[in-house]
Amino acid sequence: MRLSDIEELGLPPGTKGLPLDGSIRRVADLAGRGLNLLRGDLPVPVAVLKRSALDTNLREMQAYIERVGIQLAPHAKTTMCPQLFARQLTHGSWGLTVATMTQFKLCHDFGVSRLILANQLVGRAEIEGLAHLWAQAPERDYYVLVDSLVGARAISEGFSRCPGAPPARVLIEVGMPRGRCGVRTLPEGLTLARAIKTLPQVELHGVEGYEGLIVSERADHDAAAVTEYLGSVLQLYEALTSENLFANPDRVLITGGGSAYYDLVAHVLTGKSKGVLPILRSGCYLTHDSGFYRRLLARIEDRAVTGAAPRLVPALEVWSRVISRPQPDQAIVMMGKRDVSYDIDLPMAHWVYRDGRDTAPRAIEGLVVEKLNDQHAYLSVPASADLAVGDLLGFAISHPCTTFDKWSLLMEVADDYTVIGGLKTFF
Amino acid sequence: MRLSDIEELGLPPGTKGLPLDGSIRRVADLAGRGLNLLRGDLPVPVAVLKRSALDTNLREMQAYIERVGIQLAPHAKTTMCPQLFARQLTHGSWGLTVATMTQFKLCHDFGVSRLILANQLVGRAEIEGLAHLWAQAPERDYYVLVDSLVGARAISEGFSRCPGAPPARVLIEVGMPRGRCGVRTLPEGLTLARAIKTLPQVELHGVEGYEGLIVSERADHDAAAVTEYLGSVLQLYEALTSENLFANPDRVLITGGGSAYYDLVAHVLTGKSKGVLPILRSGCYLTHDSGFYRRLLARIEDRAVTGAAPRLVPALEVWSRVISRPQPDQAIVMMGKRDVSYDIDLPMAHWVYRDGRDTAPRAIEGLVVEKLNDQHAYLSVPASADLAVGDLLGFAISHPCTTFDKWSLLMEVADDYTVIGGLKTFF
Repeated sequence: MRLSDIEELGLPPGTKGLPLDGSIRRVADLAGRGLNLLRGDLPVPVAVLKRSALDTNLREMQAYIERVGIQLAPHAKTTMCPQLFARQLTHGSWGLTVATMTQFKLCHDFGVSRLILANQLVGRAEIEGLAHLWAQAPERDYYVLVDSLVGARAISEGFSRCPGAPPARVLIEVGMPRGRCGVRTLPEGLTLARAIKTLPQVELHGVEGYEGLIVSERADHDAAAVTEYLGSVLQLYEALTSENLFANPDRVLITGGGSAYYDLVAHVLTGKSKGVLPILRSGCYLTHDSGFYRRLLARIEDRAVTGAAPRLVPALEVWSRVISRPQPDQAIVMMGKRDVSYDIDLPMAHWVYRDGRDTAPRAIEGLVVEKLNDQHAYLSVPASADLAVGDLLGFAISHPCTTFDKWSLLMEVADDYTVIGGLKTFF
Repeated sequence: MRLSDIEELGLPPGTKGLPLDGSIRRVADLAGRGLNLLRGDLPVPVAVLKRSALDTNLREMQAYIERVGIQLAPHAKTTMCPQLFARQLTHGSWGLTVATMTQFKLCHDFGVSRLILANQLVGRAEIEGLAHLWAQAPERDYYVLVDSLVGARAISEGFSRCPGAPPARVLIEVGMPRGRCGVRTLPEGLTLARAIKTLPQVELHGVEGYEGLIVSERADHDAAAVTEYLGSVLQLYEALTSENLFANPDRVLITGGGSAYYDLVAHVLTGKSKGVLPILRSGCYLTHDSGFYRRLLARIEDRAVTGAAPRLVPALEVWSRVISRPQPDQAIVMMGKRDVSYDIDLPMAHWVYRDGRDTAPRAIEGLVVEKLNDQHAYLSVPASADLAVGDLLGFAISHPCTTFDKWSLLMEVADDYTVIGGLKTFF
């Protein structure tokens, strides 16, 4: 599939946000129709991405990675939107990162030439699937993670069964105690690397870590813990280098997560030997948010480890309507667990628009989302609020990943909320 | 779109659970290929529905509603799967229920002739959208809710603007203090009904309530509160009847939610006057679950208000693999917030299958999902557990709605986990 095919893709019935008159049948139909969210042209809820904000974030991040001297392989899982992948690659991303082989195949099919499966490759379907995809395009620069000998052997056997597949390029995942995947100690990593060297059809090309698990209320503590953890990734790299365990010592990947700690990943992983290719895998910079990542970006700014933080702005909003004002202190909005993130923070009502009164969204304060059902939000409303059935409310979100996966199509909008395109996701 | 079109529908790249070799391009390709989950033919995670369990639940619920004398309009939002809607209608459902106009349009397009939008109809796009759909098929039996004069007026105006639309058939939603939508008192409901009588293009056809919000740890308290609340719905019906405010006194709909309280809804709403059409809107009976609804069904059984409860069995499971055993007391599984419900309970590891050792899934105890990331589950593992990288784990879930919406395609499987079809959802 090519990017241009997405524009021609038929939009299935049930696609949220599409006009109910059936006038929009393909993604391409959305541009240029002058559909406007504020004017009430779209059924709600609807998820929008502001093009101006996306553009800002693409530019800001590109400038940042160039300044700090790291490569960016944004995590595709955040958006699962090939149209956005294309913009990320155009704006200087080295490649993309994925979490599952299904995500990998999507990117492979769209022709992405550098991919990191930032996850353990386990399972016959997955290992043989990768070997076959890679055999079709052996020139592609693909990497997967390992953290156990059992896993490395299974990859070796799977790739050996597939004629034409190049050797699997693996990175050793370095974990942390009570963390996620990954070797827990340097000796474990060394032992694994020595074993990999003896296996057919597997090559060791680097080390990987994910520091993003470290998040507490204490910014100083977290920064110290992240720095220490990234140091352990680097120590494994050094130990493996001194034993000459990398398949290509002139090009060794060292990669960290990064949505929360760009600065520390860049600070620790860059400026090493000439053979090191340091890679950041942030997925959330593109849309940023108004909760979790806003708070973490403020910490980057405070730390000033790599100078100024990128000036990211929130691009993703979910809009819906007040459908009931059953009590003076309560409003019910047509938006629920199916429409918006609720895993870190509940959505935040930031803007109101009333048809016939407003010409642009007004900032609103004091409305608090107290609870979500599958399809409804419960808002507490201060006595002073002027809020009526039919009013549109714009919600800022926290954690873009869990909002994206609730939408097969997001509307790309101009600053006046005119739809200028459709962004299709593939979850 | 017709049901048979679903079988021919192209499956987009990125569809989770599909073999990575590209051999499955349409839903129809899934049947008869002999793909087996346990044999490792599918990349994980994968969501499966057991046909035998679906069949049991369809039969059990049909027998139950016939016995208690209520009609069933299952909530389509649970599965958003037209193939399952068709089975529900074949097994005696009166019609379907939806929560949004986008869901309504999906059912309309598939030809469902009786629909309840069990939600307030608000917004120009939504109201005019319904009016236009209905104008295309004025013989259809459609209903929407109102709880305010503002809302009723907007519906009246929207329908008046649409030539050919029949009058909108509305039900007054009865709420509860600190509840969701709905009039809070009988006088409010009466006032609204009197106003509706004066509006063009709107007809009052019944009353609606949703008792499912009442859930606490105390079964007795909840049953009493639900009974009292359903009584208030009935009181409004009686008051409106005595003022002759229904458009068709010979056929007045009284409808309750029902996934948690089939018995009480049936007990309170059935056996009224001949003109009453009592309707239950349960969506979750079809798949049932192993958490929230399991507990609530046990209460129905304990109450024995309507005799034996239907013998529902859990049909929906999510399977994935152990991808890392980084510490003796920990396993990481490839399954996260994108794959499984986490809003009421975390998923429960009930079965394990090891290739080369097992011929069928084994029950397993003691594994506890402690946390989910977007794509990973963290399991605590007792010292005695025999669990290795590569083992398949089968997870029971709690709250089917929030698992369904994470899958555009679920695999329908035989009891031996051979894929016998694909069930396509439209979220």
